[in-house]
Parts: sequence; structure tokens; C-alpha cells
Amino acid sequence: MAHVKDFKWKKGMSVKDLVSSYRDLGYQSVELKKAADVIVKMKKDNAKIFLTFTSNMVTSGLRGFFAQIIENKLANVIVTTVGGIEEDIMKATGEKFNIGRFDSDDVELHEKGVNRVGNIFVNNESYMHFEDKLTKMLDKLYEKKKTWAVSEMLKEIGLMLNDNSSILYQAAKNNVPIFCPAITDGAFGFHLYLFQQKHKDFIIDVVKDFGNILLSTNHDEKKGVIALGGSISKHHAILSTLLNGGANYAVYMTTAHKTDGSMSGATTEEAKSWGKVKDESDVATVIGDVTITFPLAMISALEQLDEEGLLR
Amino acid sequence: MAHVKDFKWKKGMSVKDLVSSYRDLGYQSVELKKAADVIVKMKKDNAKIFLTFTSNMVTSGLRGFFAQIIENKLANVIVTTVGGIEEDIMKATGEKFNIGRFDSDDVELHEKGVNRVGNIFVNNESYMHFEDKLTKMLDKLYEKKKTWAVSEMLKEIGLMLNDNSSILYQAAKNNVPIFCPAITDGAFGFHLYLFQQKHKDFIIDVVKDFGNILLSTNHDEKKGVIALGGSISKHHAILSTLLNGGANYAVYMTTAHKTDGSMSGATTEEAKSWGKVKDESDVATVIGDVTITFPLAMISALEQLDEEGLLR
Amino acid sequence: MAHVKDFKWKKGMSVKDLVSSYRDLGYQSVELKKAADVIVKMKKDNAKIFLTFTSNMVTSGLRGFFAQIIENKLANVIVTTVGGIEEDIMKATGEKFNIGRFDSDDVELHEKGVNRVGNIFVNNESYMHFEDKLTKMLDKLYEKKKTWAVSEMLKEIGLMLNDNSSILYQAAKNNVPIFCPAITDGAFGFHLYLFQQKHKDFIIDVVKDFGNILLSTNHDEKKGVIALGGSISKHHAILSTLLNGGANYAVYMTTAHKTDGSMSGATTEEAKSWGKVKDESDVATVIGDVTITFPLAMISALEQLDEEGLLR
Amino acid sequence: MAHVKDFKWKKGMSVKDLVSSYRDLGYQSVELKKAADVIVKMKKDNAKIFLTFTSNMVTSGLRGFFAQIIENKLANVIVTTVGGIEEDIMKATGEKFNIGRFDSDDVELHEKGVNRVGNIFVNNESYMHFEDKLTKMLDKLYEKKKTWAVSEMLKEIGLMLNDNSSILYQAAKNNVPIFCPAITDGAFGFHLYLFQQKHKDFIIDVVKDFGNILLSTNHDEKKGVIALGGSISKHHAILSTLLNGGANYAVYMTTAHKTDGSMSGATTEEAKSWGKVKDESDVATVIGDVTITFPLAMISALEQLDEEGLLR
Repeated sequence: MAHVKDFKWKKGMSVKDLVSSYRDLGYQSVELKKAADVIVKMKKDNAKIFLTFTSNMVTSGLRGFFAQIIENKLANVIVTTVGGIEEDIMKATGEKFNIGRFDSDDVELHEKGVNRVGNIFVNNESYMHFEDKLTKMLDKLYEKKKTWAVSEMLKEIGLMLNDNSSILYQAAKNNVPIFCPAITDGAFGFHLYLFQQKHKDFIIDVVKDFGNILLSTNHDEKKGVIALGGSISKHHAILSTLLNGGANYAVYMTTAHKTDGSMSGATTEEAKSWGKVKDESDVATVIGDVTITFPLAMISALEQLDEEGLLR
Repeated sequence: MAHVKDFKWKKGMSVKDLVSSYRDLGYQSVELKKAADVIVKMKKDNAKIFLTFTSNMVTSGLRGFFAQIIENKLANVIVTTVGGIEEDIMKATGEKFNIGRFDSDDVELHEKGVNRVGNIFVNNESYMHFEDKLTKMLDKLYEKKKTWAVSEMLKEIGLMLNDNSSILYQAAKNNVPIFCPAITDGAFGFHLYLFQQKHKDFIIDVVKDFGNILLSTNHDEKKGVIALGGSISKHHAILSTLLNGGANYAVYMTTAHKTDGSMSGATTEEAKSWGKVKDESDVATVIGDVTITFPLAMISALEQLDEEGLLR
Repeated sequence: MAHVKDFKWKKGMSVKDLVSSYRDLGYQSVELKKAADVIVKMKKDNAKIFLTFTSNMVTSGLRGFFAQIIENKLANVIVTTVGGIEEDIMKATGEKFNIGRFDSDDVELHEKGVNRVGNIFVNNESYMHFEDKLTKMLDKLYEKKKTWAVSEMLKEIGLMLNDNSSILYQAAKNNVPIFCPAITDGAFGFHLYLFQQKHKDFIIDVVKDFGNILLSTNHDEKKGVIALGGSISKHHAILSTLLNGGANYAVYMTTAHKTDGSMSGATTEEAKSWGKVKDESDVATVIGDVTITFPLAMISALEQLDEEGLLR
Repeated sequence: MAHVKDFKWKKGMSVKDLVSSYRDLGYQSVELKKAADVIVKMKKDNAKIFLTFTSNMVTSGLRGFFAQIIENKLANVIVTTVGGIEEDIMKATGEKFNIGRFDSDDVELHEKGVNRVGNIFVNNESYMHFEDKLTKMLDKLYEKKKTWAVSEMLKEIGLMLNDNSSILYQAAKNNVPIFCPAITDGAFGFHLYLFQQKHKDFIIDVVKDFGNILLSTNHDEKKGVIALGGSISKHHAILSTLLNGGANYAVYMTTAHKTDGSMSGATTEEAKSWGKVKDESDVATVIGDVTITFPLAMISALEQLDEEGLLR
């Protein structure tokens, strides 16, 4: 068993050095270092990596990091919620979000046309611009065919974007499918509905997309899951690995706790009872805000993979 | 401003008396009493009430309470995740779940064919029986028509059940639509997929169902939201009230905090910035496990409405 | 193993009936019912019961409930933080606290001389009145003797009060010692300091009081701990049971989680590794705000003990 | 208002660069960057810096970092709980703690003589060795004088140690007082008690030490507080700054939330209502495990101060 070691700052300390020190520090820092190790292992083992995140993370600056991770072949399948799709498109088409405050006066913000997501502000007009852009995209899609599985539609939209920091763009370019099992739960859904009112034969086939994620891997392939936050994005990824024999590697990063039986707080251990994660898997569950914890774990993994010449 | 009052137990104390005392106690108990009051107000004001919950609550014994609430006309629209649908059907068709332990050995459970949701155990065979039942239901649905909006399908399934404690059964009987924006994110989705493989023209139309929830209310009608837990069930309900001018009443009960920008932790105040909840609305956000807090608030509201002859 | 049971409201439902239903509901409600059962068991087994709470609970209306519990012989030793002592004395001498809001403007409150504890407001003048009262009490104490162990001093102060809802008063009357290992960490400490400046031979002997709590029980006696919240009040009680062979019964109620290694979040299981709680003990850890959870568990226990004629 | 910026990894990224990026990322990362900035400001403004932490952090590897911070003159007053004192002495006298697991079998650990603090293991024999060491130290103290204020005693003990990674040693060497308002709440207290049994005139004067912390600063001096975790260590520091006119700078890092009215979760805003923190102060509250968040914020501050030649 490893001893707890006195942590000391060294001038010019790198993220990788800090995360290395976490191994012997205690509490969640130990889990964070383990998460970094599990990510390295899944890559070295050529596992198919499912990366999942909720929309608030795309609202945040993690969006560009997700795109970079896809570009670097560290995510092979993406699952997210529809807000994540919307805001990636908004940012790819020039919208800017602002850093505000958690304790803002929400009535005042509402009067100013500002929508709050924690301490991030999104202007109403960004949603209006999004409507214009999306409607044109749907027109183009409809010209091609009438029935779309969600991931096919998202790939097509990704190809219409031109932004290296865009998740949809990088995913489309790198043949990484994006699944979104609740595509209608947002402004995107509203615009799909309006479009369908005009084009009655326009169909989003979510059942077909279940087949797509199911067949995105198989029993023989090694599988890894990196689930950031909870919700259906986390659940959908581990459901598809479950149906393919369970994940070999799993990293869960969340602020939720296991004490209320929620999916958000469900641990990598609980996943073993379901077969979502194999019994003998390498797993880590890190409790904390992913805007802090995920860059730490992933940068550490990226540096190590890069040093060993395993990146891209 | 009300004074803090010394709480005292009285022999034979009722839930309503306890919740009344919470008004002057402090911290979350104050919010819980306010939640009970807001529920009473939304009913008295004839608001259309959106009740949302996540699947783990249907796994728990709250399932029968939700059915009773629907029966008592205190929920007019339901939004949930697909696990909630699956487990309501399982229970309605005779499956039993067990109370276990949070700290069980998950590898051992897996070997025994037991799936863990917090401290509740679900047997593998319940999922197998569910497959049999659902496949037969899908056969009947397909005979009627090929394309189904989710809420239409769930109503039809509700009518096939016969269990007063079933959410789907009570909802179908009482014309309460059930929306589930991610119908494929579970075993249900897998069976839909297998069914579609055999019947290529079988379509689940999620876009049409967006219209259904959008038109389930309107700008003029008073609207109330009771959101238990987070996830897409919470978001979908407040999105539809947003598009109809915002809710007049809102009660959020959750274990999540606002500090990470998640939907689960988003408060009724944050909702005001979006117009999801009107600026002048009666709102309450209660932090705590809903298996404890929701019965308290809702029983208190039921008793008061019953005393005033306003129930059913 | 017990089945999950569908919960149903019955008209006029009592707190005891609700808590009984929690047994088969799931998640924290199951733990809450277990907590009620463990409290009943410790009383029936004639265990010496250590009740611990933090000062914010005395700020709240739980203060009168704690006094009632002492009066009913359900707490034999009290451990709290000094704020709990101060505010019990304030309330016993006529000060009123108010129910306010969590999201108040704190700069504005400061200008008005209002101090905020969550959503409870305490006026500056309550602290000024407290100073007057306490100084007179210290004068009387000093007349009797120069050196005081903390618990001896608190008993003497309790006897100077005359309020059935006072923790210090009921404790003094019922020979229940109150321990407070950090008596100087508050306004009380400041006044002790000013008093000592005038009376150089005035000594608070905290070391002697360690002996008092140590000898408040022994290895042979059955011991139970009810720890509300964390901090030194929780730790001090379980330290003294540890040194006496470990507690036979333990109920922890807290909002903190075990994932950060804190005392507040340390579970009844972790306590077993230390011998703070015996290996074979009856234990329950309930996550939630104690203003909601503690009345539920304790009322349920009080009703059952009363029915069996075991109260007082 | 700053825009949210897409975060991107750069090869060899330093901790300082990462924390700089947090400014534009969102949620708690923004607060963490602000915490780093506030620490830099308090140092530049020559504020007296109060650093507080709970014992579990000394159990962890942060202990050596705290010593380094004291050595670098970034902490001028320390407040902690007695477990932090005990474990610093244990480590300084050769004891090793181990990294274990959160989900260990606690009954089994107890049989092996292993005590668990989250995922850190402390052996029983470390406590036995501590007893030997401490008793000898108390003998020496008693030879010098009979009555000790806590901080005087801790300074004397620090001078008996010889370990650059020791908090007590560095504090003693650098004239940084260590306050511990609940010195008896631990094994230390037990040994003080046993010692007093043999030496009836041995007195720990906690009231005198209140004066020492009160006079450790004054109204005119600028004051900063860095409070890690909650408990009496946090409260005692801000109480003493309150009595000296309030802190000009405050950084709170904790896993607790403000929703339960606890000291652990009390925010830097709540502190303003009390005058604990001045209305116009620079403040930051960071929610997260301090083993992860504190090194990030403090390393970033150290690097910046070092670059500007302001370190030591």
C-alpha cells in the first residue's frame, strides 16, 4: 500500500506533475489520478472510447477541449444532451457567451434578455440567430432525404460547420458519431417541430439511432467510458456498452453522490451489478466540478500518451 | 418577518402539523413548507400541473404515490425518463423489487443476476419478463397503426394495464399525457429497435410529440411545475411552459446544488432568467432526497385541499 | 429481503405512519426509518444516549425540541458548539430570531445590523443583550469559585435560566451534562476573555472536562450516539464512547458526504474501523437537512416509546 | 464582461496556465481562478493571512504543503483542529499513513488495528507511539511552567520537532502562532487529562489564548482569510477578524453548501452580513475537495508571486 506523501510545490510545476502528486495525497485527488491512469490504459488498450457530457459543459469553455479530444482520437463515440448540440452550433456560428455571476438578479436578467446557466450568461439573440441558421440547415437536410436518424443528421450538420473548436465539426471530420437520445428536448426540438409542420413527411427516427449506437461497438472490442455529469448522456453510453458485454474501463466525474439512487450519482461500482462495467474493470469515480477535474485528468493523460508517442 | 419558533412534539402528531411547524423552523424545512403552500396555490388557481420525476423514483415506492396523485387530479401532465416507464410496467405486471443496501458487493450481485439502483435491487428476470410483455404490446400497437408519437403509445400501453397503483394506467384513465423525450434510452429502446428490425415501417415520431407537449397548455392558462430530481424530465416540462409564457408556480425538489451549472441543480430563481418561470411566480426549491421530502410536502398539500373540499 | 411497496397517502396520516412507510420506499427514506428504529432500541436497551448538534440547529427551532428530548430522558449527555450555548441563552432571555431568505443582500443586512445564518436572521442587539446577561452570570460564577470545568459552568448557568424550552435549563434540571470542547470559539469566548482580564485568577479548565465526559459512561454501560451534523460536537461524543469501548448504537444525520474524508461526512461504518462504534452495532446514516429529517425520526421514536409506556 | 473561451490543451501545460484558463471556463473553475487572484492580492497588500484547515487535511499529503506555505510567509496565523496537531506530530516523528480505499470493510480494518479517514489508513500503533512522544513533551513543558495557553504550548512543541515538512516546526521557526480552540477533542486531550491527573496544577488556559488570537492582528492592519473546510478552525479565524473590523480578503474552499445553514457551507457573502468580511472585500468561495482545489489555487498564486519577486 502506498504511503501518504507530503505534497510540495516546485517552481514551474506542470499539470502532469501535480496530478502525479495526487496519487499520494488523499481523498478525491487519489481518484482523480486514478481517472487519468484509466484514460491512459483505455487508449493503450485500443478501447473504443465513449465520451459523454451534459449541455452545461458545452455552455462552458470545455466545448473547445472536447473538440480537441475528438481531434486527438481520444473519443470515438460521443453522447450528449440536445443543449450541447445547440450551443456548439451557436458558438460555431459566432455567438459569444459571457462569464457572469451565480447570484445575479434573475428578474433583472430576464428583462435584459439574458438567460443564466450557473455563472454563464447566454443572450436571447443567440437563440434567435440559432433559429435562422438551423432552419437553413434543416432545409438542406430535407433536400437530401426525408427520414434521418439523429446521429446521421448531426454528422451532416457538422460538415456544414467550419470551426476547429466545434464538437460537431471535429466529430464529422473524424467519423466520430454523436448520439443524442432526447433530440427534441430543447430549442432544436422546437425547430424540428416547426419544420415538420411545414413538411409532414420529415421524420427523425430515434429507434434507428438506437441500432446505430448498439452497433458502434461489439462484444469483442475493448470498450471504455468517460462519463462527465449524469443524465441520459451517461446512461445511454453505458446502456450500449452493457448490451455489448460491458465496459472494460470506466471513469465517472460528477458532483452527484450515490446516496439518492440517481443516475447522476451512480458509481462505477454500482455499474458492475448491471454488467454495464465488467467486474474486473479499471474504474474511477471522481466527485467534483468537471470544469476543474476533467482538464486535470485529461491533460495528464494527454501528456503521458504524447510522451509515449501514442497520440493521434 | 416571522420569528423562529421552538419546535415541540405533540402526541399523535400528523404529517400536516409537522409540515406546518416547518414554516418557523429554519433552513430547508422552511422551503419544504413553502413547497407545500405553492402546490396548494397551483391547484386552487386551476393551474395545469406538470409533474416530472426521474426513473429511480419509480424504482422506489413513490411510484404508487404518483399514481394516486394523478388519480386525485393533482398532476395534469407527466414527464419522466424511460426507466420510469419500464419499471411502472414491470410492477404493473407483477414484478417485485427489493430493499437492499447501498454498500453491497456489486460483483457478487452481478453474479446473482441482481441489478442495483442505490439501495434497491432489481432482478434480471424482471427485465426478461418485461421483454415478453412489451413485445406483445408492441404487436398490438403495430396492428393499429405504424407511426406513434411517444405519448400516444404510452397512453395505449396504459390502457392495456390494470393496476390502480400504475402511473401509466392512471394517466391513461384520467387523460393525463405522459411525455418521455428519450424513449429509446433504456430496455424499452432496445425492444423498439428489435421490433423495428422486423417491421421496417414502424416509426416512433418524437417530433410530433414535441407538438403534443407544446399544445398541452397555452399562454392564457395558469401553469405549475413540480419537478422532482433533474434530467430531461425536469427540463422538458419547463421548456414547454417557457414556450407557453412561463410557469406561474414552480416547486423544485432535488439533491443537486446550483454551483455546477447543471439542470439538476438549477433553481427556481435561475428559471426566471429564462422566462421558464414568470418573474412574479410563487416558487420553492427544496434540497433533499425526494423519497423523504416529496411525501411530506404533497401529503400536507393533499390534507389541506381535502379539508377545503378541493380534492378531485 | 423486504419488497419495495407502493406508497399511498391516507387521510389524516400521522408522522409515525409516514415514517413506517419509509421502510419500504427506497434510498434515504429507508435509512431514516432505520434511524428511528435504532433510537427506539437504544432507549429500550437503557443505553446512555449522547446527543450532539451544531450551533446552527440551536439557531433554528430545533432548540425547543432538543429541550423536550432532554426532558423526556432521551438524551443523557449533550455535546455542542459554543454558538449553540450562546443562542440558547439568548432565546431563554427573550431574544427573537427571524426567518429570512438565503439569497438576501448581505451588505444591506450588515448595514441594518442583521447577521445571517442561512435563512435565519439574528440581530446585533441580541448579541449586546447577551453580553449584559452573560457578564452578570460570570460574576455569580466567580463568587462561587475561580476555576470551572466547562460542563460545570454550563450547568450553573442552566440553573440561572427559567425556560422550559431551554437546552441549558432542562439539562441542568435533569442532570444531563453539556460538553462544549471549544467554549472560547464565539462571543462567549470573548466575554470570558474580558472577564479574565479583570479577574486574572479566573480559569476555565478544559482538561478537567475531558475527564468529566470520559467518566460520564464506562465500558460496561450500553452507549448510543445521535450525532446531528459534524464538527467537534460529533467527534467529541464518539471519542468519549471510543475510550469507553465503543458505542452500541449510532445514528448520524448530516448533509455531508463521505467522499472528502471529513468528520462531518464520516459514516457510522467508518466509525467501526476506529472502534468508535462496535462492530456489531445497530447503525444508520441519514443524508439530509436535519431540520427535516431529525423531527421525522425522533417523533416516530417518541410515539413508539410512548405507546409502549417507555417514555420518562 | 468576459466571454467564455474554448479551452485548449497545450503541450507541457503548467498549473499556472491551466488556472489562468479557468477564468473563462465557467462554474467553479471561475471561482477557483478568483481564489488564486485573491490570495495574490492579500499578499501584495501585506495583509495578515489567517490559514485554517481541518484535521483530515493534515492526515492527507497537504500537510507538507501547509508547512511550505508557512515557510514562504504566505500564512501568518494558523487555526486548526486538534487532529491536525496530533497527526503533524506523528508524521514529524516518523509515522507513515497509507492510501487505502473508501469502500473498505471497516470491521476487518478494526480487527487489523487500522483506523480509516476516508481513503487514508492510520495504524493504531501510530497512536501508541504518539502517546510516548507526547508524554515526554508534556514533561518538558511542565518543567518550564504549569499554565500554558494553547498556542504557546504548540510553539514549544514545534521547537522540539525537526522536520521541514512539519506545520508545527515551520510555524515555530517562523513565529506563526497556531490556534486550536478545541485542544482536548482528540487523543491529545486524553493525554493532557492523564498528565493533569498526575500533576494537578497543570492548566491549559484556553481563555488566555482567545486574547492571543484577538491581539494577533488589529483594526488598522489588512487581514486575509484562507479557510479550507469548515468547523471551528474556519469559525475561529473569522471571529477574530470580525473582532478586528473584518477581513479585507477571504477565500473559502469547501465541499459544503450554504443550503443547510452550517458553518462549513457558509459563504464569503454570508460572512459580510456579520462583518466577518468587509462589505467591499475581495472574496471567493470554491466548492470542491480541497486536496484537488487548494494546490491549484495556491500553486498559481505562488508562481505569480515568485515571478514578481514577492515570495519570502
